[in-house]
Amino acid sequence: MSNDNANSSSSAPKIPRQTNDYTSEAVAERQQFVYDQTQVSLKHVTHGSLPLDSLAGNIENYIGVAQVPIGLAGPLRINGQHAQGDFYIPMATTEGTLVASYSRGMRVLSELGGVTTTVIERYMQRAPVFHFDDAQQACDFGDWVAQNMIAIRDAAEATTSVGKLSHIEQYGVSRMRFLRFNYTTGDAAGQNMCGKATLAACQWIQRHYPKPVRYTLSGAIDTDKKHSQINTLHSRGARVVAEAVLPKQLIHEVMRVDTRDMFAARQVSNVGALLAGSVNNGLHAANGLAALFIATGQDAANIAESHAGIVYVDLLENGDLYWSITLPSVIIATYGGGTGLGSQRECLEIMDCYGKGNALKFAEICAATVLAGELSLAAAVLAGDWVASHDRLGRNRP
Amino acid sequence: MSNDNANSSSSAPKIPRQTNDYTSEAVAERQQFVYDQTQVSLKHVTHGSLPLDSLAGNIENYIGVAQVPIGLAGPLRINGQHAQGDFYIPMATTEGTLVASYSRGMRVLSELGGVTTTVIERYMQRAPVFHFDDAQQACDFGDWVAQNMIAIRDAAEATTSVGKLSHIEQYGVSRMRFLRFNYTTGDAAGQNMCGKATLAACQWIQRHYPKPVRYTLSGAIDTDKKHSQINTLHSRGARVVAEAVLPKQLIHEVMRVDTRDMFAARQVSNVGALLAGSVNNGLHAANGLAALFIATGQDAANIAESHAGIVYVDLLENGDLYWSITLPSVIIATYGGGTGLGSQRECLEIMDCYGKGNALKFAEICAATVLAGELSLAAAVLAGDWVASHDRLGRNRP
Amino acid sequence: MSNDNANSSSSAPKIPRQTNDYTSEAVAERQQFVYDQTQVSLKHVTHGSLPLDSLAGNIENYIGVAQVPIGLAGPLRINGQHAQGDFYIPMATTEGTLVASYSRGMRVLSELGGVTTTVIERYMQRAPVFHFDDAQQACDFGDWVAQNMIAIRDAAEATTSVGKLSHIEQYGVSRMRFLRFNYTTGDAAGQNMCGKATLAACQWIQRHYPKPVRYTLSGAIDTDKKHSQINTLHSRGARVVAEAVLPKQLIHEVMRVDTRDMFAARQVSNVGALLAGSVNNGLHAANGLAALFIATGQDAANIAESHAGIVYVDLLENGDLYWSITLPSVIIATYGGGTGLGSQRECLEIMDCYGKGNALKFAEICAATVLAGELSLAAAVLAGDWVASHDRLGRNRP
Amino acid sequence: MSNDNANSSSSAPKIPRQTNDYTSEAVAERQQFVYDQTQVSLKHVTHGSLPLDSLAGNIENYIGVAQVPIGLAGPLRINGQHAQGDFYIPMATTEGTLVASYSRGMRVLSELGGVTTTVIERYMQRAPVFHFDDAQQACDFGDWVAQNMIAIRDAAEATTSVGKLSHIEQYGVSRMRFLRFNYTTGDAAGQNMCGKATLAACQWIQRHYPKPVRYTLSGAIDTDKKHSQINTLHSRGARVVAEAVLPKQLIHEVMRVDTRDMFAARQVSNVGALLAGSVNNGLHAANGLAALFIATGQDAANIAESHAGIVYVDLLENGDLYWSITLPSVIIATYGGGTGLGSQRECLEIMDCYGKGNALKFAEICAATVLAGELSLAAAVLAGDWVASHDRLGRNRP
Repeated sequence: MSNDNANSSSSAPKIPRQTNDYTSEAVAERQQFVYDQTQVSLKHVTHGSLPLDSLAGNIENYIGVAQVPIGLAGPLRINGQHAQGDFYIPMATTEGTLVASYSRGMRVLSELGGVTTTVIERYMQRAPVFHFDDAQQACDFGDWVAQNMIAIRDAAEATTSVGKLSHIEQYGVSRMRFLRFNYTTGDAAGQNMCGKATLAACQWIQRHYPKPVRYTLSGAIDTDKKHSQINTLHSRGARVVAEAVLPKQLIHEVMRVDTRDMFAARQVSNVGALLAGSVNNGLHAANGLAALFIATGQDAANIAESHAGIVYVDLLENGDLYWSITLPSVIIATYGGGTGLGSQRECLEIMDCYGKGNALKFAEICAATVLAGELSLAAAVLAGDWVASHDRLGRNRP
Repeated sequence: MSNDNANSSSSAPKIPRQTNDYTSEAVAERQQFVYDQTQVSLKHVTHGSLPLDSLAGNIENYIGVAQVPIGLAGPLRINGQHAQGDFYIPMATTEGTLVASYSRGMRVLSELGGVTTTVIERYMQRAPVFHFDDAQQACDFGDWVAQNMIAIRDAAEATTSVGKLSHIEQYGVSRMRFLRFNYTTGDAAGQNMCGKATLAACQWIQRHYPKPVRYTLSGAIDTDKKHSQINTLHSRGARVVAEAVLPKQLIHEVMRVDTRDMFAARQVSNVGALLAGSVNNGLHAANGLAALFIATGQDAANIAESHAGIVYVDLLENGDLYWSITLPSVIIATYGGGTGLGSQRECLEIMDCYGKGNALKFAEICAATVLAGELSLAAAVLAGDWVASHDRLGRNRP
Repeated sequence: MSNDNANSSSSAPKIPRQTNDYTSEAVAERQQFVYDQTQVSLKHVTHGSLPLDSLAGNIENYIGVAQVPIGLAGPLRINGQHAQGDFYIPMATTEGTLVASYSRGMRVLSELGGVTTTVIERYMQRAPVFHFDDAQQACDFGDWVAQNMIAIRDAAEATTSVGKLSHIEQYGVSRMRFLRFNYTTGDAAGQNMCGKATLAACQWIQRHYPKPVRYTLSGAIDTDKKHSQINTLHSRGARVVAEAVLPKQLIHEVMRVDTRDMFAARQVSNVGALLAGSVNNGLHAANGLAALFIATGQDAANIAESHAGIVYVDLLENGDLYWSITLPSVIIATYGGGTGLGSQRECLEIMDCYGKGNALKFAEICAATVLAGELSLAAAVLAGDWVASHDRLGRNRP
Repeated sequence: MSNDNANSSSSAPKIPRQTNDYTSEAVAERQQFVYDQTQVSLKHVTHGSLPLDSLAGNIENYIGVAQVPIGLAGPLRINGQHAQGDFYIPMATTEGTLVASYSRGMRVLSELGGVTTTVIERYMQRAPVFHFDDAQQACDFGDWVAQNMIAIRDAAEATTSVGKLSHIEQYGVSRMRFLRFNYTTGDAAGQNMCGKATLAACQWIQRHYPKPVRYTLSGAIDTDKKHSQINTLHSRGARVVAEAVLPKQLIHEVMRVDTRDMFAARQVSNVGALLAGSVNNGLHAANGLAALFIATGQDAANIAESHAGIVYVDLLENGDLYWSITLPSVIIATYGGGTGLGSQRECLEIMDCYGKGNALKFAEICAATVLAGELSLAAAVLAGDWVASHDRLGRNRP
């Protein structure tokens, strides 16, 4: 790090080479540049095995790899619409106890017969906003859009062989009309596919609307890379449910907790969630999702959206505990993006989820994994070994 | 994947070896197990260089590594309280255009003199809830806690050489009293440190409170691994601001956009954020944070909390644009957790951020990086090359 | 007030007469009962002029009236789709300065040419939830509902000559399916009309769905008598916009403030609203709405929903200030409920809004009134006479 | 209503007389003005008995009164810290069934021994924001404020004989520092008292802070006349709990419902509240509060803040149902404002709540009333007579 006068304009050297130069010479030159500028000699970052010619489209100014440890969790029995059978789940994380805890939850869920999973719907969005002189004009425009849905769909879908425009939500505020385009995107997450298609739709609208019209391609209600209540209501990516009935006896034997206490703790969490204004009344969905996302080449930034959730539990008359979590915005892909890279693809393959036709299956695995983590942590907190197990397994703490 | 009858109890084999067995034999046996169960031959996952004896405390059931491509962004001039100078930023992602876009923003910010960064405060939390027979008893307890703060602090701090209990927020709901313990945690993120200290504090309280008292170690308002409004208000991890004044002329020349248009777009995003109920009225903080977090061994699940933000801009009389983003809950560490692992440590070292004494500095780098990404994407959207650049650089899309 | 032992079961006498006995004898007997129990001799409460035979359907256990002072504000020039012309606005309140402040805003808005108002949409809701054994069954049910929309509409509309079922929103969570029925309700607010129609629809569904099905008539997402983000997004009652362009010169002359400063203050309020998690980034919509609601026989409890809003402003190049407020959930009626009672009807008549055909007009008057209040208070705060005017006009403060 | 050309500047006549002219001549002249402009002859509005010389400070441009019907509910047994005994509750509303329903809930609660109520805390707020050149200066200012708390308190309290400055919350965003001043305000609601005191504090700060400093008296996080999460967390007005244990047997006999079913319905409402983003997971707190507020001269606009709530229930092993509601922001007064007017004072006196020393007592009555309404409606919905009773009692519906 150069430490010249911070108040002068920067004289720090530019990173060499074109950002999308993936030749070994370029990579080496950048690594040397790192050394020259920072005196850091990269030994682990440079130890990747991803073929350089596979990286275009995934990274720029490539210098190497982050090696994130993967632990194997499971087996996890899933009785889904799309995921069926016993799965082993690769989880990439540096948080001690995470894999052990999720794996415990998975085994318990498997023992009681498995997790039932359901994808309620799955769409990806882009939400432009159109600007007018006054609110009435914005309303008129909204009507026109509804009436011209077929042509708008044609314009959007002309840009993609995969994406299909399902429907457009409309929201009027002030003299603006917000449109939220909802697409099915095959096995891709589809953000860029939707962006491109919606741009084409907006251009078509601009050409055909009887009056001059101005738009912004994103009016911020997509809502990309951030949680929002609109995601909880109207989904972003997959809306998935994982549910299971926890037998009182089994839970007591295996996890040393009473289902009644587990139920009571959920009541407290409901209060806590409402008090704090939380986006998830469950425990730690983000943990399982982040570990799965990193292992399988998902966009880890989508943890922002994907970690939202609603837990609903019901204590049955016989003391068994119905437990469900609904994740309204799980953004995943099994094709495109980072899914085809070396280790990422291997991890998808472990779950037989790589490539086309697997997105809904993988979404169900994500939800089932999250449920396992909820169960395990909830029991650990009640059994009092939460702090203890972090002390035992997570000793890389200061 | 075995596909036996999904309705019967699972007969899928258990993963071999103890979860915390890090011997090469154990790793190999688990890899063989993966092959036996799934016929997936791991070539890239197994290509890690992390010393096995470094993994205890970070992973269980270890089978190898996720290789996440790292691109180098920058230089980024930062004029912070803790981060000062020109930085090169390693970003681990599989999302094409991300590094190029952030890097562009960084260079522009450097050219205009750099980003000003400030850590407003930094605390980590654990929030137990105490249960009583009625609301009045819960109130009485709250008073008692306030009066016994010194002893409670002593009990908490006895468990850690690093963590210091700063203050306890109190919230009364129904017959419960929620306490939110706020600690400084040195250069660790500190979740487990806080959990342990708070457990000790609760046990002390239980022993010393004049009446029998029952508690739950987490009352769900911590709020761990999930966004909440309480985080936005009262921080979780570091509350950091990044700010810069964008000269009208420079922005026009370099980014081909008018500061007035950039300002107008922020107004629309404010409406969109309020309409959607978004946790961030900015654009895509999660992108930059996720890439930095994965590269440097942060807990990527904390993207859930860290991606929240408030953008505030001001169009100056001369047409220059003041732009700031406040990130209320950036959860990071430069010591402990995954920060000491091979590639992760190297990436921290590139920014001279590894080890003790660097947490606030790294928090400022995170915020400055986010600001660069906001600027770059905002300009790209306006200049109309948003979709185009994804088409060009992000070709790994279906 | 009797003060017998609070721990014993109550021996306090019951209120005499049937709750729906509106004879003068019954009223007198209840008034005597008040005196007997509390020694309070009602002089003002008993001074009502509402004919007793007009009260059935509006009140039970009638003992008299609350006399809420009414001030006249205006004139207010409105250029709406439904409200057109100059209006005088009766406002019932006990808050000093409120009427004077709103009236000032109205006169300024009138002077600059009037407020433009638009009703974007208007629906009333009832939202039952249907329960199933698992999430897949809930999804199947959702599909069935969509396919049987015509018959469901017939069943709902058979209960009312006024209400029309427009559309049903669907939300899947866990093993439940939430349906949000949206009706047009003529000039009534329509909560009960919708409740009755939705009950009939649910009963029809229960009879015709191929499997046994259980429902709750309200699944709490209506959301009746409380604000929610779903209201902001999908409206409840009328979604109305009021907008005006404030000339820089006029505002300076009349209100002694600069439009640039007014604009800057809105930027701060946006931050404050996001920080606090407010349901309205404007100033005090509730004030104007409450005063109008009480004067005109609206259900004042609906202030809960009606006070939400999104303010969007734009500083034009010439220094003029475009100002708008969008109220997504203004719940009003001009027919039925309390609108036909003596003073309430008179107040509606002052605005030529009593009876059928006036609901949208009155909704626009509500929004225009709110905008006047926003403008007036915003200017007062900036001009520094906010506190001073409360001191002068609001002397009934301790 | 004049209907001249809506696009020309308004020529509608001004309302005659000074706004604060309360002479009978002024009132008559305004009433004549109403007739002249609108041809509405006011018969009920003019039928008030409030002495004209009592109105200064409560209304401007006075023309008469809104007569809101009052029904008597109760008796309601309350076992509070401040409210103790059996109360009859005057409720002003035009919504049929409301009084009957609340009254039913009150009698049931009384029969089971009464409602337990607790005021957790009570503060009124004003929240200025201070502006700086950068975030670091804003932080420095925050430290200075904390260090100068005694002098700031002195400056604030010098303006009022009643208000006491308890504490100041601080929130840093961008280059601003938001301060939320919390006052005790005796038996007044205190918004204006707090405004005046905070203005004095800000002026003191401006004079004494070592550097020039600029502020806005309200930074929008007060949050006045609107709900916000900050209110739920940190209260505004009184934070009150009402709680009761509902015996299974009694509830079954009196309300024809099973406590288990009531409990189950609460679980569904929790999901609905989280899904919708509601500010209250209960049923209809706004109904009871609005009726009480109008009857007793409270500021009805504060329904916006006061209707928020958190319901927490617990099904006991014996089938009895613990039910509580926490209202975090009940804004009420028993002195000042509209409380001293004719009918308003009488209604306070019915509950022995008029004047100094009664604010906390009245806050408890409000919460107990709300609980009665929750119980009654919850049971009605389950027993299926919700729609039916509205049909029977609420016949003033179209």
